[in-house]
Amino acid sequence: MSFEERKEATLKKLEYHLEEQEVDPPIIPLIELINKDKEFFTTSSCSGRVLILIDRGRKIESEKYLTFHRTITLEDLKDIPEEAWLRVEPFILHVIGKNLERTLDLVDLVKSIGIKRSGLSRSRVGYLVEMMGNVYMSAPVSNLTIDETLVSIINEKMKQNFEVLKKLEKTLQGFIKE
Amino acid sequence: MSFEERKEATLKKLEYHLEEQEVDPPIIPLIELINKDKEFFTTSSCSGRVLILIDRGRKIESEKYLTFHRTITLEDLKDIPEEAWLRVEPFILHVIGKNLERTLDLVDLVKSIGIKRSGLSRSRVGYLVEMMGNVYMSAPVSNLTIDETLVSIINEKMKQNFEVLKKLEKTLQGFIKE
Repeated sequence: MSFEERKEATLKKLEYHLEEQEVDPPIIPLIELINKDKEFFTTSSCSGRVLILIDRGRKIESEKYLTFHRTITLEDLKDIPEEAWLRVEPFILHVIGKNLERTLDLVDLVKSIGIKRSGLSRSRVGYLVEMMGNVYMSAPVSNLTIDETLVSIINEKMKQNFEVLKKLEKTLQGFIKE
Repeated sequence: MSFEERKEATLKKLEYHLEEQEVDPPIIPLIELINKDKEFFTTSSCSGRVLILIDRGRKIESEKYLTFHRTITLEDLKDIPEEAWLRVEPFILHVIGKNLERTLDLVDLVKSIGIKRSGLSRSRVGYLVEMMGNVYMSAPVSNLTIDETLVSIINEKMKQNFEVLKKLEKTLQGFIKE
């Protein structure tokens, strides 16, 4: 499969997920921007989230108990099982690039605005860039006091994350060729 | 500065840090292995750690209050300031590669054994690979009950981290050209 065929198939899938409202709203403008460029397309993405996870060690056996792609209230966190973990995870975005030099340029640009967790690897039809924010919280509910203080701390992290996402979108407007 | 000059300067600095016992012991065999290869050298590394951090938002203003590159006891965590964060951070290793194809091979290999947070970017004398484990805990001390249960959870994460580090070392033995 060529880069162009893969891009077409991936965008078709994305269109379906958009219609089903399964794509996190805060990251939609960014992925739409990137997909305008003939030499790039996005694969998976997450805008950042508050996640309640029943961690069974292996990813495949673990269970997402609750997920919020927004700031939260104390009400959102009631009745969480003791064995769960409460996490704040940053945005993550996967982009496939056709041309090595331009894909390396993309990584340089993204790192230059402080998104350090970014790097390139080979993919079947080009090169994969993973870019990821760095706000993070992760703790076992068994040892966590869930109160308004914690909710404020979580929401502060979520806001920081969305700010970085906006900054990324703005920066890429000068890079993407429509 | 050429790749070779940069490697020589970096290894000299490493030798000094080794003599001063400033390099985390669990990661020394891995960095010594990688540095045997003429086309690679390591720059910064951390074996993974338990970290007590006074988080002031900006990295430069934040303060490492305590760091352990090993499993811990409850005693290690007494009298921690309320405003601190308690973190378990995975190993992180930066490697500079001279040759793009072999550096991409390194990224593929590292990702193939489950170290997904790995990618490449440009560096002044070649290509930088960042590889990073994925065990993580991070929570504000203000909302954390620090007891034997938490210490066990932390130590379990640290052990998982060191296992992945060992696996990486073993895997790279077949890749590094002495």
